Amino acid sequence: MNNRRSSPPAAGKSPAPAASPWRASHERQRDRELKRDAVIRAAAREFNRKGYHNTSLDDIAARLEVTKPTVYYYVTSKEQLLFQCFVAGVERIRAAFRDARALQLPASERLNAVLRRYGEAVASEFGWCMVRAEDQDLSPAMSRHIKALKSEIDQGIRRLIREGIQDGSIEACDPKMTAFALAGALNWIAHWYREDQTLSGAQIAAAFVTVFEGGLRPRSNGAQHTARAAPRRRARRSGTALAR
Amino acid sequence: MNNRRSSPPAAGKSPAPAASPWRASHERQRDRELKRDAVIRAAAREFNRKGYHNTSLDDIAARLEVTKPTVYYYVTSKEQLLFQCFVAGVERIRAAFRDARALQLPASERLNAVLRRYGEAVASEFGWCMVRAEDQDLSPAMSRHIKALKSEIDQGIRRLIREGIQDGSIEACDPKMTAFALAGALNWIAHWYREDQTLSGAQIAAAFVTVFEGGLRPRSNGAQHTARAAPRRRARRSGTALAR
Repeated sequence: MNNRRSSPPAAGKSPAPAASPWRASHERQRDRELKRDAVIRAAAREFNRKGYHNTSLDDIAARLEVTKPTVYYYVTSKEQLLFQCFVAGVERIRAAFRDARALQLPASERLNAVLRRYGEAVASEFGWCMVRAEDQDLSPAMSRHIKALKSEIDQGIRRLIREGIQDGSIEACDPKMTAFALAGALNWIAHWYREDQTLSGAQIAAAFVTVFEGGLRPRSNGAQHTARAAPRRRARRSGTALAR
Repeated sequence: MNNRRSSPPAAGKSPAPAASPWRASHERQRDRELKRDAVIRAAAREFNRKGYHNTSLDDIAARLEVTKPTVYYYVTSKEQLLFQCFVAGVERIRAAFRDARALQLPASERLNAVLRRYGEAVASEFGWCMVRAEDQDLSPAMSRHIKALKSEIDQGIRRLIREGIQDGSIEACDPKMTAFALAGALNWIAHWYREDQTLSGAQIAAAFVTVFEGGLRPRSNGAQHTARAAPRRRARRSGTALAR
């Protein structure tokens, strides 16, 4: 099964590059990956919609209009499938950290870039699995694996905060508590966001990062208790991440 | 059962004020409330520890060293008990809103006061029930009730944000997205905080409010891309909510 290949070269013509054995193997590999992704994506949607315990591999197969053995070709168990959904979401955040590392920017901007993609990942179909996988009855090995990946993300955020305090781009703060506040706000997106909403995940993530970055205090006036005197016009003029 | 009363006045003495029928009724009422609170608190701890579905009324009775009928004297069902735990937590936030209304302060400070107590409530034994009650299989009526109370809190936060934008104490922002970010960060405390941790709920809430208020951007330097030039000393001098 799943052995779709590129067409053989027409007789009498020299073989096109597309027909080389390497290319065929590459295409098979790609085809397999696409199908595996479709299985994981369908599973994420079903877990999100019905909960992990109420979803069977049959449900996921039915969604994809394939048989259960086809699903088993890509994953070995439902638990493995949940873990793959978790990894698919978390991998987006890990990629954001890798990309941020290459940026020649103050740590605050690298952090914002990561947080935006973190928010987008939680608002994706993988959000539920990312924030709720650990609540399920998973094997100890899988729980440890999930905890380790979560800890890696947490430590990455704390590191960027510490770097920002050092390079002067982030106000002095408790890196651990700040990381918990930022990640908590982003994680919670999975509790309320549905794909059919007006705002995209990217727009929500951008709005959140604006709040994290600037805070609630008016920009031109640090002393909050004198804020009553602040002119209204300033507040209207300054931009928000979301037009209303 | 549960009919402990104040002692009758000693013979030959004029009745002490404590023995008046009103006082006795008041004391009975108070005694009943204390015991009901103990039941709800014990239930909240068990739900938090073992999950709602894995906790029975027998477990809660055993915790309190009473019989199951004693528990039933205070609540009619496990579902009702979960709801009461939810209400006990949410009531702290509602009280914070009522208290804030009386403060003659800019909206930003009234909001901070509410958010601090919101964080303390989520870090209390009721936190799990506050943020997870809705995930359980509750009756439609109870779900509606919980949704309505959550919406009241959400609307209250948005209202304070709007008031802050109007009185100039809060930077212009999207009130809905900002409320979601703040509440999300606070709600997530229930996912990671345990009472045996070094920091109290109040300390965590204070640290979070500091982040919400000032954001990550350095206070004395609004333009983030010039932040590299900011002197290290400033960062060290400015206070954090938490000594490290």
